[in-house]
Amino acid sequence: MAIRTPQQYIESLKDGRVVFCNGERVKDVTEHPILKICRDWVAMDYVLENDPRYRDLITEKNEEGDRVSFVLMPQRSREDLLRLREIVKLWARVCFGKPPGAKFVAKDGLNAVTVVSQRIDKKYGTKYAKNVETYRKYLQKNDLSFSMGLTDVKGDRSLRPSQQKRHQDYYIRIVEERKDGIIVRGAKTHISQAPLCNEILIAPCRAMREDDKAYAVSFAVPANSPGITMISAEPEVHEVNLFDHPIAGSVYINDATIIFEDVFVPKERIFLKGEWDFAGQVAYMFANFHRLSAETYKAMELELFTGAAVLMAEYNGVEKVPHVREKLTWLVMYTEAVEIIGRSACEHCISEPDSDLVYPNPLYANICKFHFADNWHQATKYIQDIAGGITVTCPTGKDFMNPEIRDLMDKYLGGREGVPTEHRLRMAKLIRDLTSSYEDVLTIHAEGSLEAQKLSIYALADFDRYKAAATRAARLENGKAHPLFKDLPAFPPNL
Amino acid sequence: MAIRTPQQYIESLKDGRVVFCNGERVKDVTEHPILKICRDWVAMDYVLENDPRYRDLITEKNEEGDRVSFVLMPQRSREDLLRLREIVKLWARVCFGKPPGAKFVAKDGLNAVTVVSQRIDKKYGTKYAKNVETYRKYLQKNDLSFSMGLTDVKGDRSLRPSQQKRHQDYYIRIVEERKDGIIVRGAKTHISQAPLCNEILIAPCRAMREDDKAYAVSFAVPANSPGITMISAEPEVHEVNLFDHPIAGSVYINDATIIFEDVFVPKERIFLKGEWDFAGQVAYMFANFHRLSAETYKAMELELFTGAAVLMAEYNGVEKVPHVREKLTWLVMYTEAVEIIGRSACEHCISEPDSDLVYPNPLYANICKFHFADNWHQATKYIQDIAGGITVTCPTGKDFMNPEIRDLMDKYLGGREGVPTEHRLRMAKLIRDLTSSYEDVLTIHAEGSLEAQKLSIYALADFDRYKAAATRAARLENGKAHPLFKDLPAFPPNL
Amino acid sequence: MAIRTPQQYIESLKDGRVVFCNGERVKDVTEHPILKICRDWVAMDYVLENDPRYRDLITEKNEEGDRVSFVLMPQRSREDLLRLREIVKLWARVCFGKPPGAKFVAKDGLNAVTVVSQRIDKKYGTKYAKNVETYRKYLQKNDLSFSMGLTDVKGDRSLRPSQQKRHQDYYIRIVEERKDGIIVRGAKTHISQAPLCNEILIAPCRAMREDDKAYAVSFAVPANSPGITMISAEPEVHEVNLFDHPIAGSVYINDATIIFEDVFVPKERIFLKGEWDFAGQVAYMFANFHRLSAETYKAMELELFTGAAVLMAEYNGVEKVPHVREKLTWLVMYTEAVEIIGRSACEHCISEPDSDLVYPNPLYANICKFHFADNWHQATKYIQDIAGGITVTCPTGKDFMNPEIRDLMDKYLGGREGVPTEHRLRMAKLIRDLTSSYEDVLTIHAEGSLEAQKLSIYALADFDRYKAAATRAARLENGKAHPLFKDLPAFPPNL
Amino acid sequence: MAIRTPQQYIESLKDGRVVFCNGERVKDVTEHPILKICRDWVAMDYVLENDPRYRDLITEKNEEGDRVSFVLMPQRSREDLLRLREIVKLWARVCFGKPPGAKFVAKDGLNAVTVVSQRIDKKYGTKYAKNVETYRKYLQKNDLSFSMGLTDVKGDRSLRPSQQKRHQDYYIRIVEERKDGIIVRGAKTHISQAPLCNEILIAPCRAMREDDKAYAVSFAVPANSPGITMISAEPEVHEVNLFDHPIAGSVYINDATIIFEDVFVPKERIFLKGEWDFAGQVAYMFANFHRLSAETYKAMELELFTGAAVLMAEYNGVEKVPHVREKLTWLVMYTEAVEIIGRSACEHCISEPDSDLVYPNPLYANICKFHFADNWHQATKYIQDIAGGITVTCPTGKDFMNPEIRDLMDKYLGGREGVPTEHRLRMAKLIRDLTSSYEDVLTIHAEGSLEAQKLSIYALADFDRYKAAATRAARLENGKAHPLFKDLPAFPPNL
Repeated sequence: MAIRTPQQYIESLKDGRVVFCNGERVKDVTEHPILKICRDWVAMDYVLENDPRYRDLITEKNEEGDRVSFVLMPQRSREDLLRLREIVKLWARVCFGKPPGAKFVAKDGLNAVTVVSQRIDKKYGTKYAKNVETYRKYLQKNDLSFSMGLTDVKGDRSLRPSQQKRHQDYYIRIVEERKDGIIVRGAKTHISQAPLCNEILIAPCRAMREDDKAYAVSFAVPANSPGITMISAEPEVHEVNLFDHPIAGSVYINDATIIFEDVFVPKERIFLKGEWDFAGQVAYMFANFHRLSAETYKAMELELFTGAAVLMAEYNGVEKVPHVREKLTWLVMYTEAVEIIGRSACEHCISEPDSDLVYPNPLYANICKFHFADNWHQATKYIQDIAGGITVTCPTGKDFMNPEIRDLMDKYLGGREGVPTEHRLRMAKLIRDLTSSYEDVLTIHAEGSLEAQKLSIYALADFDRYKAAATRAARLENGKAHPLFKDLPAFPPNL
Repeated sequence: MAIRTPQQYIESLKDGRVVFCNGERVKDVTEHPILKICRDWVAMDYVLENDPRYRDLITEKNEEGDRVSFVLMPQRSREDLLRLREIVKLWARVCFGKPPGAKFVAKDGLNAVTVVSQRIDKKYGTKYAKNVETYRKYLQKNDLSFSMGLTDVKGDRSLRPSQQKRHQDYYIRIVEERKDGIIVRGAKTHISQAPLCNEILIAPCRAMREDDKAYAVSFAVPANSPGITMISAEPEVHEVNLFDHPIAGSVYINDATIIFEDVFVPKERIFLKGEWDFAGQVAYMFANFHRLSAETYKAMELELFTGAAVLMAEYNGVEKVPHVREKLTWLVMYTEAVEIIGRSACEHCISEPDSDLVYPNPLYANICKFHFADNWHQATKYIQDIAGGITVTCPTGKDFMNPEIRDLMDKYLGGREGVPTEHRLRMAKLIRDLTSSYEDVLTIHAEGSLEAQKLSIYALADFDRYKAAATRAARLENGKAHPLFKDLPAFPPNL
Repeated sequence: MAIRTPQQYIESLKDGRVVFCNGERVKDVTEHPILKICRDWVAMDYVLENDPRYRDLITEKNEEGDRVSFVLMPQRSREDLLRLREIVKLWARVCFGKPPGAKFVAKDGLNAVTVVSQRIDKKYGTKYAKNVETYRKYLQKNDLSFSMGLTDVKGDRSLRPSQQKRHQDYYIRIVEERKDGIIVRGAKTHISQAPLCNEILIAPCRAMREDDKAYAVSFAVPANSPGITMISAEPEVHEVNLFDHPIAGSVYINDATIIFEDVFVPKERIFLKGEWDFAGQVAYMFANFHRLSAETYKAMELELFTGAAVLMAEYNGVEKVPHVREKLTWLVMYTEAVEIIGRSACEHCISEPDSDLVYPNPLYANICKFHFADNWHQATKYIQDIAGGITVTCPTGKDFMNPEIRDLMDKYLGGREGVPTEHRLRMAKLIRDLTSSYEDVLTIHAEGSLEAQKLSIYALADFDRYKAAATRAARLENGKAHPLFKDLPAFPPNL
Repeated sequence: MAIRTPQQYIESLKDGRVVFCNGERVKDVTEHPILKICRDWVAMDYVLENDPRYRDLITEKNEEGDRVSFVLMPQRSREDLLRLREIVKLWARVCFGKPPGAKFVAKDGLNAVTVVSQRIDKKYGTKYAKNVETYRKYLQKNDLSFSMGLTDVKGDRSLRPSQQKRHQDYYIRIVEERKDGIIVRGAKTHISQAPLCNEILIAPCRAMREDDKAYAVSFAVPANSPGITMISAEPEVHEVNLFDHPIAGSVYINDATIIFEDVFVPKERIFLKGEWDFAGQVAYMFANFHRLSAETYKAMELELFTGAAVLMAEYNGVEKVPHVREKLTWLVMYTEAVEIIGRSACEHCISEPDSDLVYPNPLYANICKFHFADNWHQATKYIQDIAGGITVTCPTGKDFMNPEIRDLMDKYLGGREGVPTEHRLRMAKLIRDLTSSYEDVLTIHAEGSLEAQKLSIYALADFDRYKAAATRAARLENGKAHPLFKDLPAFPPNL
């Protein structure tokens, strides 16, 4: 099969999965009025794979000669990473900044277990790499959509998994080992598009100690596995309405909570089991790949965001006002810096030792993600300032369509001459969607919190180089000099 | 009558007014499922007036000896302003940071026309002050709710009212003068709670030039006056749901658009008519009073906001994490600075010359409002960072009430031991409400945009004092010294 | 005597004290070319005391009927604090933002030991309060200048005093107890104007534990006590030059390092000796008073700073450029916010329980100091941006006075027509002085670092009030409600 | 000759040039105690050219087969730009972040006139390109140091050159045309190292209109040309002292003011003469190249800066304190972002049409420079916060060398065990130098002010792309779609 059609994808979801949404058990996730938004968004992955204009970019022949999704293949070069980046950009451009999630997140988890399983095998003589490879081929062959279950529900954040007091299931753990596999219990949360995916890939979300051994577990299972319950995140909209909610009405990421009540995992689907010293590496390597994905789509989202700001400035007749120009300029810098730094993370990628895999430069990827997330609220402030109160006080699209008041709204809610009132109203609605608390929180917490990025950056920084520079300038020769500095000529010179 | 009951207020709204909401004409604004949220919120004004615990604070005997709403009386002293501030604080505390709008905004408009009408009468020999006074007595006697119609729809913001190209009605204007009054046309927008008020007070929103004379108009009319159409802002919720939307489910400010299609205003209800040189003063003086009101309720909103941040930090078990403490400390500073500077604007109020009226120190009031609005997005970033992804990925209250999954949610979505899961979920929902794009835009644009505050501050600054200090330090004696500096002893001294 | 003349002050410094400056032992601190800058600055205290225009403000009759320096008397009311504030404002206005240090810093130390000694006596039955009172009278009677020795040299900041490894003298400690007093050893650093003061008041700079008992010591000694060595801070200038260094040429604060090599302190001069549980309170109470002093003079410094920015904008012809106006507006807000919040700390002062003393509201004082220090670098960026490169590339005053090039400089370095070139050059030099690294560091570290303020604010915050507001809004009744919230009417109401 | 020795460079400066410094005419710039600092710094260019380890990087064979300075050759490829960047990095690493100025600034001017002269010749049939080429060969052959005279003294910044009121010479202008050349008058300011260079290259600093024709002039002359007077900027130090001033004691950039009193320029040295429509292009293209140079050396300066912060944190024992780690992390991000974005400007360079020249991506170069300059003051705040008050209260190196107090200082001013006191003191002094007002102003104003970068970024932004993204998301089809968006598949799909 290899490349599925959107219809095949949709049919595959009718598999008895247990999903709740808005307080009710969902009979068929493909027909639920709100889940359908998520369904169509995820399906865009398949729409694009089947579009002849994009096939060469998105699909590739694998070693068996089958044409499969390129993102399901491991990245082995700078060029692979840059191509991956182009695919994410296309996905994001098509879907208003939000790449459809059929494989978008979980591919980074797959890459992470690919890298780390080799390391574990090397140290412990395990055979996880083979399991990963088999799973990868299975995904390729069936062109499956899969979700990445990383974040545990965590309970008390000040305690490690095994220290939790109320109960021991705040992080997914192995509750029983069998000959043919394991039984796991726990819950993952914020799992994007899980209710609309075929498979779920699970990995630990943090470093662990020996006590936490039972929590050091990574595996993959079908979404309809017995014992799995998925509860949808509160939807942003209660009906499809592309006038009032141009983004939220077409993109419902549905960061669900997935509960595992004693779910069986067959042994060939296990990628980590008890090697607690590698738990953190999986999380870290996922973050590493995923920050690249994040900053790629974010650059596309910012493109749209900055465009909305410029257009609304023009519609309001204020695009030449100095403070507006200043804000637009800032938005341009913000948009482009995310693109530049993200791209550099690919251009200056890192090779995994003893392996033919590469990954994005983690220092750059973290800086990029942080730059994006740290400045987001400033950006929302600017666009809201430019757009004006109409962003939130605008009547609804239904009002605008009501012939009783259509003419009045058309007359009075217009902006600059020559701009149709409808354009101004739709742009106001777009800006409201773009600056929702959902978008805010997504920005800060998706792909790791600001603090997570800071920790990584501190750990990755080349402090020795910095210190050597300072030591030399302060005329201190303490023998610790860095190669770049140790042989530099004396300054000032003796002339 | 003087003090009405909530029921009397509600009955008074059944007056044939023309209101639209969500695309439909509303038959009875008091029974509409969403407008009722606004109704109950506005009604709290009357609930509190009738509460014996607050009567002495909220009501006062007027000159005729009737007990009337204190906020409908003019402020004549520092103490009056501080009492007004206490009333606004009570209103805001009761209603989660949002003072019910029966008189909250329009009282500041009434105060503005009170001050400015005296100035106009003095210059032009008009009799507007008497009209204002009569209207004030009428409001007192009938304890009416009234809305403030300030912001015109504006069209092209780069053009003044009379320069607009598409049509001439982007700002409310006099289209006909009659013996007994005037006919006005135009539209006001972002008019808080207008569909649920008895009266509408209209004033210009900007300074004008002679060309704009027809737009220099201020008056008051009943909300059901023929020719008035009100279109509600898009509601934040589609049903009352205090679990998922604790704020938006109980406070619907409904910043409506009000369209005046040739509405008649009797001459005794006119407070400005063509004196274009005073148009800006009304707008300015309104802003002046209203910024005080704003910063008063904002301090209460921040109290709640900071409380939610602290509690969520505790529920998550992260309140001792250094970066969380740092953010909480920042939130405390932000909250208290708004309180301190706002209160100082009353404590150091200004007396209107040749009058017994006082108004809040405008420099301080503007600094306070700016400080609040300029830092808001930073605050939302901090609270979202502390609260975590659950803010937006949390399932709904209906899920939590569903016995099929209640126990699962209770088990897995809890935080620190001892904290009921429900507390954590409700707090997450509260934080989502507090950081919605509605709140963001309200913060920036209500009570005047950031730029409006900057303009005022620049205009009000005591640059001469600053310059004198700098001139003296630079040892320049250019004769412009300020009294505070001109006679200071020489430094360094000649010893 | 009570009020001394400047000459009497100067004569009193010829007392054999051990002072170093620029690598050399200073024979007579009153005649040293650079220390003289500090001398004249400190002497301004006496110049002003003797100026009939300011006497009523600065001096007051004490209980004995002698006219003494008001700042040497304890503050017993809001009015006392506001008067103290006015004195500091005068001092600061006269001396370009830097209050002459004869008593400026140490008065806050005196107030701190006044408050805390009463607490210690109450708990331990000691008699420190009497010692403080006797010392206070001695200072009053002789109108002495005194320095505040708070900050120890500290060594490794991660270790408490008794944990230090290299040696045990990084914090001043008692090395011997005698019948008639104690012997102390250690060093204090950043001690403003110490080499030019009569007395030195010593207090601990941090909270301590029982191990640190020997370090819990407060006392006062004359500056020429045997065993004291003072090493001046590197001066900012190498000669007096009021053209190129209008501030640094007239204000040399000289934050010296004072080393105590086994100095004897008579027992009646001891204010704390071993009561380690009160060490932190002295430091805290000093900070409390001194932050008020700090924000008072800072408001004056900012007045000057903002004035220099406005004038330079005018001299350069850019005062109407939008981004310049925006920056000036920000500077005005910054300047006035420091004034407003600082004043509020006095207006809303706190009464010490069981005492007739008051002190500035510590929450407000800390917020004010933090606001000042946190925004300073932004302010320097703005003024440097407005002023232009000439700030640092300007030739010297001697070049301008050189007839060979005077005309060329006059012709080419001028700004807007009508502004003498000399004004522009002097203003550029003033701005360089105002934005030196000395000023930067003073802003951040004097009166406690940013972190110190954050810790205080966190400790002082009324979190219970905040939490009550949030709990109520989230509809959680957990019995912890704050009095302000517990009896509020239900909202939404049941109508 | 081609490559000169440092001695040859120094000898070449004894040419009768007219230079003032500290109020006096300098007889021999190579022997003046302060100018010597500048001399040795500039000479490092020649030291490095003659160092066999760097020769292959720094020098290259030109078309004539002579080995010349690579930076005096035009850049024709991405690789050339990256090599240029490496050279600037070496220069900057050797000299503590400040590339010695023999050719550092003016090479960018040379590149600018190279590009623009071809454009002028194309439009007007002039022969400037040949003059530029001849001049370039002359510089190569003689390995000359040359300064870039860009910034005019400007007078009233609100007026264009020809509108100035006090006199007409605020911008350099042609006062007379002769057969063999022109006579120019005016003054340039902030001209780095001009008094220590052989040649001065002059270009306009802004766009001009037809009225300003006489000011549209670019040329090169020897520094000792009759009529040229150079007045040095006030030096940061008054004597060489590498302990107290490790940077300012070895790098004196000397941003001099150069006055042209009717200086003759031979016609073959003219690169622009009256073609006012190209004046802005020269300034712009210079900025373009120079911003790259700037961000390259800035990245090196930040390396040193961040190193000083880390070391001081360690010396003080606070490197594990959370707020310190947070600040260090921020400094790392800041340092690396400048490197990443600056490098990307080379990697994604632009080809000049109809030419074989390339230049750094101007959008990226401006973003990089802005990012650097906009965050600098934040960085200084952080390092000063980490380093503590000792940064400015530290006694002098002479005190430390004085045996009377050496032991006391050594004992008391130390930090963490194991760190020599001298290291801590020297690091404190380094930090003072790095955060001087000189460094601040250099950061903001060198290579163009923040506003200049904003203007460029706004002009260069791809707003059409942004708008297309927003228009599509708002479901508006207005025909303006960008190629990247116009053919994207429909979303949501119709499934």
